Amino acid sequence: MEYERIKELLVPSSKVVITTHRSPDGDAIGSSLGLYHFLILNGIEASVIIPDPDPEFLRWMAGHEHITVFELDQEKAKSLISEANVIFSLDYNRLDRIAEMGAWVEKASAKKILIDHHIDPATYFDFSLSDTSASSTAQLVFQFADNLGWNSLLNKEIAECLYSGIMTDTGSFKFSSTSAYTHRVVADLMDAGLVPDHVHNSIFDNNSYDRLQLLGYALSNKFEFDADLGISIIGVSLSEKNRFKYQKGDTEGLVNYGLSVKGSKMAVFLSEELNFTKFSFRSKGQVDVNKIARAYFNGGGHKNAAGGRLDISLKDAINYLKDVIQNKISL
Amino acid sequence: MEYERIKELLVPSSKVVITTHRSPDGDAIGSSLGLYHFLILNGIEASVIIPDPDPEFLRWMAGHEHITVFELDQEKAKSLISEANVIFSLDYNRLDRIAEMGAWVEKASAKKILIDHHIDPATYFDFSLSDTSASSTAQLVFQFADNLGWNSLLNKEIAECLYSGIMTDTGSFKFSSTSAYTHRVVADLMDAGLVPDHVHNSIFDNNSYDRLQLLGYALSNKFEFDADLGISIIGVSLSEKNRFKYQKGDTEGLVNYGLSVKGSKMAVFLSEELNFTKFSFRSKGQVDVNKIARAYFNGGGHKNAAGGRLDISLKDAINYLKDVIQNKISL
Repeated sequence: MEYERIKELLVPSSKVVITTHRSPDGDAIGSSLGLYHFLILNGIEASVIIPDPDPEFLRWMAGHEHITVFELDQEKAKSLISEANVIFSLDYNRLDRIAEMGAWVEKASAKKILIDHHIDPATYFDFSLSDTSASSTAQLVFQFADNLGWNSLLNKEIAECLYSGIMTDTGSFKFSSTSAYTHRVVADLMDAGLVPDHVHNSIFDNNSYDRLQLLGYALSNKFEFDADLGISIIGVSLSEKNRFKYQKGDTEGLVNYGLSVKGSKMAVFLSEELNFTKFSFRSKGQVDVNKIARAYFNGGGHKNAAGGRLDISLKDAINYLKDVIQNKISL
Repeated sequence: MEYERIKELLVPSSKVVITTHRSPDGDAIGSSLGLYHFLILNGIEASVIIPDPDPEFLRWMAGHEHITVFELDQEKAKSLISEANVIFSLDYNRLDRIAEMGAWVEKASAKKILIDHHIDPATYFDFSLSDTSASSTAQLVFQFADNLGWNSLLNKEIAECLYSGIMTDTGSFKFSSTSAYTHRVVADLMDAGLVPDHVHNSIFDNNSYDRLQLLGYALSNKFEFDADLGISIIGVSLSEKNRFKYQKGDTEGLVNYGLSVKGSKMAVFLSEELNFTKFSFRSKGQVDVNKIARAYFNGGGHKNAAGGRLDISLKDAINYLKDVIQNKISL
């Protein structure tokens, strides 16, 4: 990245919009708000726009009250996008990941800056900090700020936002994308005032009773494990989700239970929506779920974590999945 | 600690025994084997002795095959202890924590070195590295080795052992004992070849399908949450455990699900055994479960994590617990 040229773009007279992907997760919100605070502290007029609402357990982050949700406040979002000098794309790298917002970002006259760690970035960006080996976009925001000489601005609020992104996207420093640099970044965030257990409590100890009931039900009634193939499948239907008063985010992490069974090489979680079924894939070692999600499930992601979607019911989706497992792929 | 005098004790002609506590956990085994490798690399004749067997999910650590289990091989253990020049006490600080082994360690002529992070250390040690603010004994072993100038010896095997201790004792870097130094130590361990996800997989992704079925069953059928009082209760009977082919450790961590409900101040997990019921208490903030466990449940522990036991059935235990909650304590 050409940091000198970016420095010229990020000055107090700039209007900057930060965008992130649909169904925003901890890294999407954490990296966006982390960058937002860095910009504000530089005297820059900055806004964060997300396509649709984020789950409640992320809404404690400092600055969250200033986020604009595109689908709830389109006029404001469109005017911010069209007036921006600089638009950041954080934690996504193709415009189809931000739904209808994509068309508005595409036609905006602003310079486009990508900060992301997903594979195969689109090439339409003016500047691109794409590192598929990075643990998280939040880690890349730290690095970006460091390269711009902003590290002296690091404070507790930024540290909490970036930690949220790093910690959730690494599964609490578990995933193979966690590097020595990741831990050194977190040490610096702690020096800036981060108290990790507050963040953990805010994000994880926020369960509704219904959510835990849904977890229990899914594990005891909807969980299949094929020990020969090393494949776990958990699927919940729309009516089951309704029964447990499903809120967005309630099934987050469920796929990891599947992967935690001894001998599990790949875990799939299926969640039925109104007219389609969403797939979450997780794998270990050499099993490449990105390839599988791309080839058969209209999706993609990382080698060991990917998603997909098919416009069929849960029942049909499980049958299709089993057909793919039996006949199309080998782990 | 007087590292110069310790250096004189730790020379190739020394015979060193490393001991750790009963029911050894990840930090006990990880710190002991980490130190063991450092000693061996210095040409020192070293042995690790544990009072009773450790759980299977820790036995993959390098050097584990050289561990002597006191209760399985008393003659060998006693002769190692009596011939030692130096005995290390790792991850415990009172001899009653090592059961019958304590008497033998006490009468041994060896110099005694403590490396530990528990409160109220006994004073009988010749050298004592006691730091109650440290995340783990494994972190203190890293620091001890660093102070002896051994850091150039750090290798992948040592790094995996020490990481196992740090990671398990911090709840994956969640607990408030996690410091910036903790993360910097882990970064150094990664530079030495540690691959964290291998360790996580070895320790955690070892669930049996039955264990997850028991978890699901307990959450969906045995979980009560009193939103007014902020109290979660989960109890499983002996026959329920048998139904899911219960193995030691299978209900480990279940109490934390109770505490993860928004608004939960205290969580209790009850596990019925043959003629008694075991209690695990967890709490947040100012709720002191150590006091409660001591006063009503024949137990104790820490302020936010304690245990207890009553010689009654699960059903009676739940009734008694509810009576205590309603009439004896206020949160």
